[in-house]
Amino acid sequence: MKTRIGILGYGNLGRGVELAVSKTSDMELAAVFTRRDPSSLTIASSVPVVSVNDIGKWTDKIDVLILCGGSATDLPKQTPAFASKFNVIDSFDTHADIPSHFAKVNEAALSSGHIAMISVGWDPGLFSLIRALTNAVIPDGKDYTFWGKGVSQGHSDAVRRIAGVRNAKQYTIPVDSALASVRNGENPELTTRQKHLREVFVVAEDGADCAKIEAEIKEMPKYFSDYDTTVHFIDEETFLRDHSGMAHGGFVFRSGTTGKNDEHHHVVEFSLKLDSNPEFTSSVLVAYARALKRLYDEGERGCRTVFDIAPAYLLEMSREEMRAHLL
Amino acid sequence: MKTRIGILGYGNLGRGVELAVSKTSDMELAAVFTRRDPSSLTIASSVPVVSVNDIGKWTDKIDVLILCGGSATDLPKQTPAFASKFNVIDSFDTHADIPSHFAKVNEAALSSGHIAMISVGWDPGLFSLIRALTNAVIPDGKDYTFWGKGVSQGHSDAVRRIAGVRNAKQYTIPVDSALASVRNGENPELTTRQKHLREVFVVAEDGADCAKIEAEIKEMPKYFSDYDTTVHFIDEETFLRDHSGMAHGGFVFRSGTTGKNDEHHHVVEFSLKLDSNPEFTSSVLVAYARALKRLYDEGERGCRTVFDIAPAYLLEMSREEMRAHLL
Repeated sequence: MKTRIGILGYGNLGRGVELAVSKTSDMELAAVFTRRDPSSLTIASSVPVVSVNDIGKWTDKIDVLILCGGSATDLPKQTPAFASKFNVIDSFDTHADIPSHFAKVNEAALSSGHIAMISVGWDPGLFSLIRALTNAVIPDGKDYTFWGKGVSQGHSDAVRRIAGVRNAKQYTIPVDSALASVRNGENPELTTRQKHLREVFVVAEDGADCAKIEAEIKEMPKYFSDYDTTVHFIDEETFLRDHSGMAHGGFVFRSGTTGKNDEHHHVVEFSLKLDSNPEFTSSVLVAYARALKRLYDEGERGCRTVFDIAPAYLLEMSREEMRAHLL
Repeated sequence: MKTRIGILGYGNLGRGVELAVSKTSDMELAAVFTRRDPSSLTIASSVPVVSVNDIGKWTDKIDVLILCGGSATDLPKQTPAFASKFNVIDSFDTHADIPSHFAKVNEAALSSGHIAMISVGWDPGLFSLIRALTNAVIPDGKDYTFWGKGVSQGHSDAVRRIAGVRNAKQYTIPVDSALASVRNGENPELTTRQKHLREVFVVAEDGADCAKIEAEIKEMPKYFSDYDTTVHFIDEETFLRDHSGMAHGGFVFRSGTTGKNDEHHHVVEFSLKLDSNPEFTSSVLVAYARALKRLYDEGERGCRTVFDIAPAYLLEMSREEMRAHLL
């Protein structure tokens, strides 16, 4: 019997999950749940679109519910709430709030007898896994994480809130010389400014004061003031043509030493170049949803993270095939 | 109580394990076992050096025995044999023989109530884990593995067997243009010759026919005939000065697509640059030995590979700390 997947929230991530599930042979989409009027939603698959108010009727028809909402306001409430009714998985990515989110989801899952998983994607997610793995094998060393080149939704939103801005997109770009130094094993101490550049493309309202907008962006505390930022003003047509993509990526390094006198240096590098951030994140969510169902069937309950899952649970292939072909 | 480690075989790998264990706070070296006369061996630590013939007296004094022999003749016999007496871990790296080695070790470990682990290091090992992980999250794609720049022991040995060769070292070097094409998401079909170059440094016997040696190397089936090989003749002094290192490394890529029409391309790259191949491999072995002891304490028995171990088992740090600092 196939693992029955439910999707809550049909934005970019939800659509990506739908696509990723359709490419497996051991999972199937059972329903899409939405806070909108279900009749207003057209989805790619031929499964029911259900109001989230009716989700309680689906508890025995869904093996894993994939929560595709945002980390700011949706997931902090949804994941603990739905962990009381379903096995759930989310991509919660507010790093500082992970311990408290984990505690709430764990309690809800344990007391209702479900399994749950939080912070699944690429960072947090695959990058976290690589940090753990490389910390384990290089105990004496330093971690470096770089993001980009890619769009930061939070920074784009912040720019859009400035008066006179009609539309905006912000790219986070790792500094080449910093990457090169880390890759070269130099273990540099890098300031925020030395690690990433920010590049902003703005469509201004007619008659807006561009110099004022640019100054407001560059001086914005937390978001921009600690970075070297370049601002470009472009027209709407150029914006839609050149800045509608959702590419992203990043780099994780572990650089450290072994040897009696730390004389041997080792550098591990893991990088992602992604044409579609939401589709890749969805694909990671679906692989971990597979693992979750298997662990649930083995009797595991409570909240998990990528640190708790053995790689073999993620693949359709048997362990015997893995040993023959991937080891 | 600390995890008590035994080392069998005190070559480069055994010395690396000794060093790596000394840098942990949750493990300690209990003894070094050797096939040589124990009195002939000087080790860095102040633990007993014991003849392998007396290893039977140590069954209740060792939590995990790390087998540091070679894959050609030592491990195929040692790992199944010692899995009957100890929890064991090895770095068996003859890819084609992994399934049969696994079956023997698994049977020995299960019937004696031990846990065992094979093929731990970086390839097989970390590279295998990355192949599994990236296959899981990019089901539609291609795998690429490149090795080097680094010394191939097997190829160096093969050259040393040629008449007139006093000493030799062979470097495996990935072809830059092949790396660039894979990194660029071009999913090339690459022949053996297009992936790696071979470079050989030879110290010839006095009066040897260098042209003949060079031809013999380049035409050697399996080892060299499918590659572009460069041969350098150098003197013993240069050889010892410039070619005594044990640096190595390599690259694993997964390149594939998501999207309705496979329109979004993703490239994942994992690479290692290692000053000391044996010390890094040892460090990986020690991290997995930690995991093995924990899994044994949880009641797990039989043979495992890197696919079966959740990352959290590899670190000294608690899962709570991992979630706060690495997720």
